Amino acid sequence: MENFTFHVSTDIRFGKDRLDELPEVLESFGKRVLLVYGGGSIKKMGLYDQVMARLKANNNQVFELSGVEPNPRVETVRRGVEICRDENIDVLLAVGGGSTIDCAKVVAAATLYEGDAWDLVLQRRTFKGPALPLVTILTLAATGTEMNSGAVISNLSTNQKLGVGSPSMLPKVSFLDPQNTYSVNAYQTAAGSADIFSHLIENYFKRTEGTDVQDAVSEGLMRTVIKNCPIALKEPQNYEARANLMWASSLALNGLTGNGKTGSWSCHPIEHELSAFYDITHGVGLAILTPRWMDYALSDETVDTFAQFAWNVWNVEERVPMLAARIGIQKTYDYFKDCGIPMTLPEVGINEEKFDIMAKQAVEHNKIKTMAYVPMDVEDVKEILEACLTESSFV
Amino acid sequence: MENFTFHVSTDIRFGKDRLDELPEVLESFGKRVLLVYGGGSIKKMGLYDQVMARLKANNNQVFELSGVEPNPRVETVRRGVEICRDENIDVLLAVGGGSTIDCAKVVAAATLYEGDAWDLVLQRRTFKGPALPLVTILTLAATGTEMNSGAVISNLSTNQKLGVGSPSMLPKVSFLDPQNTYSVNAYQTAAGSADIFSHLIENYFKRTEGTDVQDAVSEGLMRTVIKNCPIALKEPQNYEARANLMWASSLALNGLTGNGKTGSWSCHPIEHELSAFYDITHGVGLAILTPRWMDYALSDETVDTFAQFAWNVWNVEERVPMLAARIGIQKTYDYFKDCGIPMTLPEVGINEEKFDIMAKQAVEHNKIKTMAYVPMDVEDVKEILEACLTESSFV
Repeated sequence: MENFTFHVSTDIRFGKDRLDELPEVLESFGKRVLLVYGGGSIKKMGLYDQVMARLKANNNQVFELSGVEPNPRVETVRRGVEICRDENIDVLLAVGGGSTIDCAKVVAAATLYEGDAWDLVLQRRTFKGPALPLVTILTLAATGTEMNSGAVISNLSTNQKLGVGSPSMLPKVSFLDPQNTYSVNAYQTAAGSADIFSHLIENYFKRTEGTDVQDAVSEGLMRTVIKNCPIALKEPQNYEARANLMWASSLALNGLTGNGKTGSWSCHPIEHELSAFYDITHGVGLAILTPRWMDYALSDETVDTFAQFAWNVWNVEERVPMLAARIGIQKTYDYFKDCGIPMTLPEVGINEEKFDIMAKQAVEHNKIKTMAYVPMDVEDVKEILEACLTESSFV
Repeated sequence: MENFTFHVSTDIRFGKDRLDELPEVLESFGKRVLLVYGGGSIKKMGLYDQVMARLKANNNQVFELSGVEPNPRVETVRRGVEICRDENIDVLLAVGGGSTIDCAKVVAAATLYEGDAWDLVLQRRTFKGPALPLVTILTLAATGTEMNSGAVISNLSTNQKLGVGSPSMLPKVSFLDPQNTYSVNAYQTAAGSADIFSHLIENYFKRTEGTDVQDAVSEGLMRTVIKNCPIALKEPQNYEARANLMWASSLALNGLTGNGKTGSWSCHPIEHELSAFYDITHGVGLAILTPRWMDYALSDETVDTFAQFAWNVWNVEERVPMLAARIGIQKTYDYFKDCGIPMTLPEVGINEEKFDIMAKQAVEHNKIKTMAYVPMDVEDVKEILEACLTESSFV
């Protein structure tokens, strides 16, 4: 286990009907609130009205940044910064999924930053500046952003989708009411679950030895997703399934499963290129890539970890490690497919046309060439992308 | 899953040789430090000198509260309060195991409390007052106090050992260097591991349904303890084993495995009476009680959870739930015994003499009669204590 710091001070208010706590929470930061949300689904589900009623009763001055995109764009961040500065905002309230919260995080930091918002994003994880306080109300179990300090912002003019983060961007308080995910449709529920699963996979497959705690937590959360996503797909209003997916999303990426392990992620850097060029659903891109990446990464050198994954996560009975590993990969693929996720790139409108540039950028924008579980150069990324063109079988 | 709040803001500095960060950490709170420690083992291992050298170089004014007992007493808390008030202490630095940190927590709160320290303890979990800031350097993987807001204090004059806690008592920063547990002897290593295991058991066996996340994390941490304690016993300087035990201790009792589930604990309330009357090692008392409590609690109504425990934690192959459950209990008993823990009460100097009063107090001081997984009245507690008089077999 490597040295690590774990400092996650977000105050999680988990459970049913806790919005009455919102005014008191906001009160500690100030009266002037920037409400950040996406395309209006929070209006359809009634959450917007519930929030506004409480803010009005509390005499908050509310300003709005709406229309945050599924892959939030730097232009939207800039729009938010302008409002925060013009209206002297005290606290941001993001109501939505990962995109909305990510956008709000960068607005919160960029408001207090002298340069342009994209310059801030380009500092990635080295950014150390302050940020306005952020409170979130989560409506999608997926990215884990509600309990961590990272955000991902897209710049379509440069075809870049990059992660950025600093402790100041950690939400102060996050409201996690599983009922707010009842209206998430099957496609987004599956994509969100794939995102959670992918975070666990990315942290699980690392070269650091002696990380039983992290790995056991990862395995447990993967089993939780495997069990509960199909229930939520079948019964969208099953509270326990939605609750377990939601809490798993937060714990999958708050440091519990990754801190103490080193190395870069593998599938996310590639998926970010897919989203940057084609604006596809992040979790779907990850689901398509993950089994093909696994197939690429499996070797005599890595077979022990893949076999452990097969045994501990998928309860594979086969005891020969290489065979067990292959069954584990197949089960991962089949699982995503059974959840209704399109499992080839052509199904989401992507062909080989931009594989070269995407593979090149995946390597350039990240450290997968030197720091990944199995290091990948441009040709390796291309090979993985090509494997995503058709249906696959791994056993 | 029940509604819950999870707000654990302790800044964990995990890993090797991070004490150079200590001066900067203390600096944010002030110059006047109360160093709290136990019987002097930190001097023998050199940690005292390492800490003092850094505090001296940082021009801290250091005062000392030493001699904190294994079951810390209210008299020691009072002594600490006096120093804090007389010397105008800015921050407490607890260097030691759970007892030392627990003592420091209550000193930190009682210093700012108008009444006597024992009156504060008697408020249990309802105490809401402020506390001086506390930094800890952990030297024993066991209680989890380094990352939670609770403490346990004994009053031998009234034969009471009671838990107390408030958010203000949560350590601000905790240094977790697994190397600081290398010198923990086999007996204390096993007892500490039994304590971790017991926290997981107490949170696992609850009546709340739909807590897959909490239960999967519990199972994973139990497997981590089961694997790593025997390694640490055999190789006291095995870094990975010590690291996994240490991080498991913090996560076992910081809310991850318990929040979202309701009901009172079962074994701890009984053990606290054993310790209050006989001053035995807490983890040993828990190890002795746990399998007998399991045997008491196992029934047709509870068999599913016990079978799940046997399958997921002990990898029991037997598929008949009641048989699997019994094997799981037997494995728990055998495991503690193999770790060198004396598994009967007479071996730790306890006979039936005070069973009546201890059973009575266990019920009076806690909510086990109404809120436990399987409710227990005085006669039930006595039955469990009686089962601890001789060696047991459960299959």
